[in-house]
Amino acid sequence: MKDLIDIASLTNQQIKDIITLAGKYYKSNKTTDKTYDLLKGKEVINLFFENSTRTTLSFELASKRLGATVVNLNLEQSSVKKGECLDDTITTISAMSPDFIVVRHGTNGAARQVAQLAHSHVINAGDGNNAHPTQALLDLAVIMQHKPNINGLKIVICGDIKHSRVARSDIEILTRFGANITLIAPPNLLPDADYIKQYNLTTDSNLQNGIKDADVIMLLRIQHERIDATNIPSKEEYYNQYGLKANMLNTAKPNCIIMHPGPVNRGIEIEQSLIDSSNKTVILQQVEMGVAIRMAVLEYLHNCNIV
Amino acid sequence: MKDLIDIASLTNQQIKDIITLAGKYYKSNKTTDKTYDLLKGKEVINLFFENSTRTTLSFELASKRLGATVVNLNLEQSSVKKGECLDDTITTISAMSPDFIVVRHGTNGAARQVAQLAHSHVINAGDGNNAHPTQALLDLAVIMQHKPNINGLKIVICGDIKHSRVARSDIEILTRFGANITLIAPPNLLPDADYIKQYNLTTDSNLQNGIKDADVIMLLRIQHERIDATNIPSKEEYYNQYGLKANMLNTAKPNCIIMHPGPVNRGIEIEQSLIDSSNKTVILQQVEMGVAIRMAVLEYLHNCNIV
Amino acid sequence: MKDLIDIASLTNQQIKDIITLAGKYYKSNKTTDKTYDLLKGKEVINLFFENSTRTTLSFELASKRLGATVVNLNLEQSSVKKGECLDDTITTISAMSPDFIVVRHGTNGAARQVAQLAHSHVINAGDGNNAHPTQALLDLAVIMQHKPNINGLKIVICGDIKHSRVARSDIEILTRFGANITLIAPPNLLPDADYIKQYNLTTDSNLQNGIKDADVIMLLRIQHERIDATNIPSKEEYYNQYGLKANMLNTAKPNCIIMHPGPVNRGIEIEQSLIDSSNKTVILQQVEMGVAIRMAVLEYLHNCNIV
Repeated sequence: MKDLIDIASLTNQQIKDIITLAGKYYKSNKTTDKTYDLLKGKEVINLFFENSTRTTLSFELASKRLGATVVNLNLEQSSVKKGECLDDTITTISAMSPDFIVVRHGTNGAARQVAQLAHSHVINAGDGNNAHPTQALLDLAVIMQHKPNINGLKIVICGDIKHSRVARSDIEILTRFGANITLIAPPNLLPDADYIKQYNLTTDSNLQNGIKDADVIMLLRIQHERIDATNIPSKEEYYNQYGLKANMLNTAKPNCIIMHPGPVNRGIEIEQSLIDSSNKTVILQQVEMGVAIRMAVLEYLHNCNIV
Repeated sequence: MKDLIDIASLTNQQIKDIITLAGKYYKSNKTTDKTYDLLKGKEVINLFFENSTRTTLSFELASKRLGATVVNLNLEQSSVKKGECLDDTITTISAMSPDFIVVRHGTNGAARQVAQLAHSHVINAGDGNNAHPTQALLDLAVIMQHKPNINGLKIVICGDIKHSRVARSDIEILTRFGANITLIAPPNLLPDADYIKQYNLTTDSNLQNGIKDADVIMLLRIQHERIDATNIPSKEEYYNQYGLKANMLNTAKPNCIIMHPGPVNRGIEIEQSLIDSSNKTVILQQVEMGVAIRMAVLEYLHNCNIV
Repeated sequence: MKDLIDIASLTNQQIKDIITLAGKYYKSNKTTDKTYDLLKGKEVINLFFENSTRTTLSFELASKRLGATVVNLNLEQSSVKKGECLDDTITTISAMSPDFIVVRHGTNGAARQVAQLAHSHVINAGDGNNAHPTQALLDLAVIMQHKPNINGLKIVICGDIKHSRVARSDIEILTRFGANITLIAPPNLLPDADYIKQYNLTTDSNLQNGIKDADVIMLLRIQHERIDATNIPSKEEYYNQYGLKANMLNTAKPNCIIMHPGPVNRGIEIEQSLIDSSNKTVILQQVEMGVAIRMAVLEYLHNCNIV
C-alpha cells in the first residue's frame, strides 16, 4: 500500500491494523515521552489547497512526533496563481523527492490524481466532498473505545451530509463493520437517492425521532464554503430543527455518545451546554485520536515498500 | 508556575531568576554554539491571532535553540472564520497535548483564558493593551546591563501609552524595582488618571522638558491598529512634538540610553540619524535580549512541574 | 566568500566547485538516505518579500537535508506594513544571529543591501529583474549533465527576457563558459541594446528561425507581476508566435534539450504535449538539481569563514 486515498481502498484487516497501531500512540501522546525516531530523515509535505488549521496541525504534530521533517505548503494563494496546473505542481514537488505528501484539495479525485503522479506516499486529508479517510479511521477508533462491537449499532449522522466528505468516509467505514446509519438533514442537504440505497441508509427529517435508541450521534456543520445555494435554513431555523439539545437525549440509548469533527458552531449544531457539561460528548477525544491515527497511518505506509 | 501571563503574577525573585538565566543565553546566542537539548521532544505552538513577524521569529528561534519542535499557527484568518470560539480552539489544541502554547491575541485577558483551558504551559506574547511580559522582562534585562541598580532611575516613556501593552508591562516591572517613570504623550494617548495615580507616575506634555535628567528614554509607536480615533496627530505633527531628536539629548543624563520595542518608524518617533549613529540607542540589544529572555522563560516554566 | 548575491561575483572556479558539490547531493537526494548533519545547529531564515512556493520549498528542503533549522518569513504582508524599512527589518533579524538568510525581494539590489547589513551568510533567491544566481547555477549544472562542454553551444532563450532575473543570471553564467546565446522575444520584452551588445547576444523575432541548430532552448514565462505595460500580446498571440511546438524542433540539433524555470504555462510558452511526451524536456531535472545546488551553495558558504 503506497497511499491512503479513501476508505473503499482499504481492507477490513488494514483498517483494524491501523486502529491497533493508533492505540499505542493514543496512549503515548498523553505522556511526556511522545516522540519517536521512526521517520527520522523522512520528509512530509503538507500540501493544503484549502486552509485547515486543525487538520494541518494534527498531521504536523503526528509527523514530527515520529521524527519526520515537515514542510507546510498552503497553496490557496500561490504558483497556482501563476497559471500552473495541479499536475505540474505535483510533479514538481515529487521531483524534490519528499517521502510523504499529505494533500487537501477542493476537487473530488484530486488526492488520487496526486497519488498517481507522485513517487511519494500520498495521504488524502480531504478532497472535495469525496473522502476524508483519516477522519473516518479516527471516528471509528473513538467509537470502538466506547462500543467495541460496531455491528448492529445505530449511528445517527445529522447535518449537511450532501457536501461532507467526512460523512461519506464515515458511512463507508461504519457500514463496512455492520452499523445501521440514519441520516438527518434538511432535504436539500441529503445525498442522492442512489447513494442512500447503495449503503442501505435510513433517513429522517425529525431529529428527536431519528435519535431514538441511537448509540452514536454524529453532528456535522454546514459546509457554507461548498454551497452556493440560497435556500439553506438560517442559523436559528437550523438550530430549532436540527440542533441537538440536552433535553432530546432521553430517547437515545443511555450510554449514547455525541461526536463532531469540528470546528463546532455552538448554538447551531449543538446546544452550548451539551459540549461543556455532558459526559456524552467525545469531541476532544476525537481530536486526541486524530493525532494518533495520523501517526498510525504514517507508520503503516512507511512499513509498506513503495512498489 | 505553569504560565507566564503578566508581570503582576511574578515575584521579584522570579523576575531576577529569569533575567539571570537569560544572561547565559544572551552570551551563547552570539557564538556558533547556540543550541541546547533542554526541550528536545517538547512542542511549542506559536498561536498568533495577531500577526507579528518579529515576535513570532523571536519565540521560534528561542524554542528551536532549546531543541523544541515549533508549530506556527497564524489564526488571523482561520477556523475562527468557520464560527469556532476561542475556548473551543484552545481545548482542541490542548487536546493534541503540546507542551507550550505561546499566544498573542487582540483581546485583554485572552492569554489568561488560554492558560485556564490548556494543560500546556502558556506564555503571553501580548494580549490587547493588557500585558506583554516577555517584552518587559527583556527591557528590564537590557536596562540592567547598562544600569545595574534600577532604584531611583528616571525612565521616560514617550508615545501611545494608552494602547500599549508594552508600556503597561514595563511600568509594572520598572516601578516594582523602584524606577521613577515619566509619561509623555498626546493627552488622548495617556492612560487614565487612576492608573497614573496607582503607579505614582509623572506626566509631561513636553518631550524636551520631560527627558531632563533621564536615565532611560523608551519610545513607542502609535498603535494605529488599536485606535479608531480620528483626532490623533499627523505624522509631521507627532514628530515635531513627540519625536526624539539628537539635539534634545543634552538635558538627559550623559549616559542615557534610548529604547524602542520596534518596529521603529524612523522620522516619526525618532530622528533618522539617532538610530544609526548614536551609541545611546540599544534597540538591537533589545532584539538580542528578546531571544535570550524567551529561552529563559521556556526553561523556567519547563523546570516548574505543572500542578 | 560570505554571500551569494549574483553570478558576476563568482569566479569560474567557484562555479565549478559548487556544481561539483551539487553532483553528490543530486545523487543522494534520489536515495532513502538523503540527510546530513553538516548544518546541525545552524539556522536558515527564508526571507521572502515575494511569494514563491517552489523556491521556498527548494531552499527549505535543501537546508533541512543538511540538518539546519529553517524559519520561513513571508513578509509580503508584515511589519513592513507597520512602517519599518528594509534596513531595520534586516538589522533586527541579524541581531537574532541566524547563520544564513535566504532573501527574495522585488527590488534590484536588495540582496546586496541585506548582505551588507547582516552578519549572516546571505543567499540571493531573486532580486527584482537583477539576479537569481542559484537558478543559473542549477541551469548550468543540468546543461552540463547533457553537454559537458558549454563552449560553442547555441543556447536560445525565449520569452520575457527584459523582466527576467533568471535570464540575466543565465546569460551571465553561460556566456562566461563560452556559449552563444540567441534571444527571442516580443520587441518590448527584449533587454536594451547596450546589454545585448555587452554580452554579444544575437536576437531573433522568429522562434522557428531562431532555434535552428540550437543545443538548448530555455523558455521563460511572462512576468505579469513585473509588467505594467498594456501592449503585451494576448495568450493566444503569444503562443502562436513564441510558444514552442513539437513540430518546430526538427531544425534544432537532434539532441537539443528544452528547459523552463517553472512554473510552466502549458499552451502558452510550450505546447501541452511537449512537456509530457518529449524526452527533450529536462524541466523536472531542473527541479531536482535545484535542491542539490542549494545544498551545495549552503555547504560552500558554510565552509568559507565569515570575514
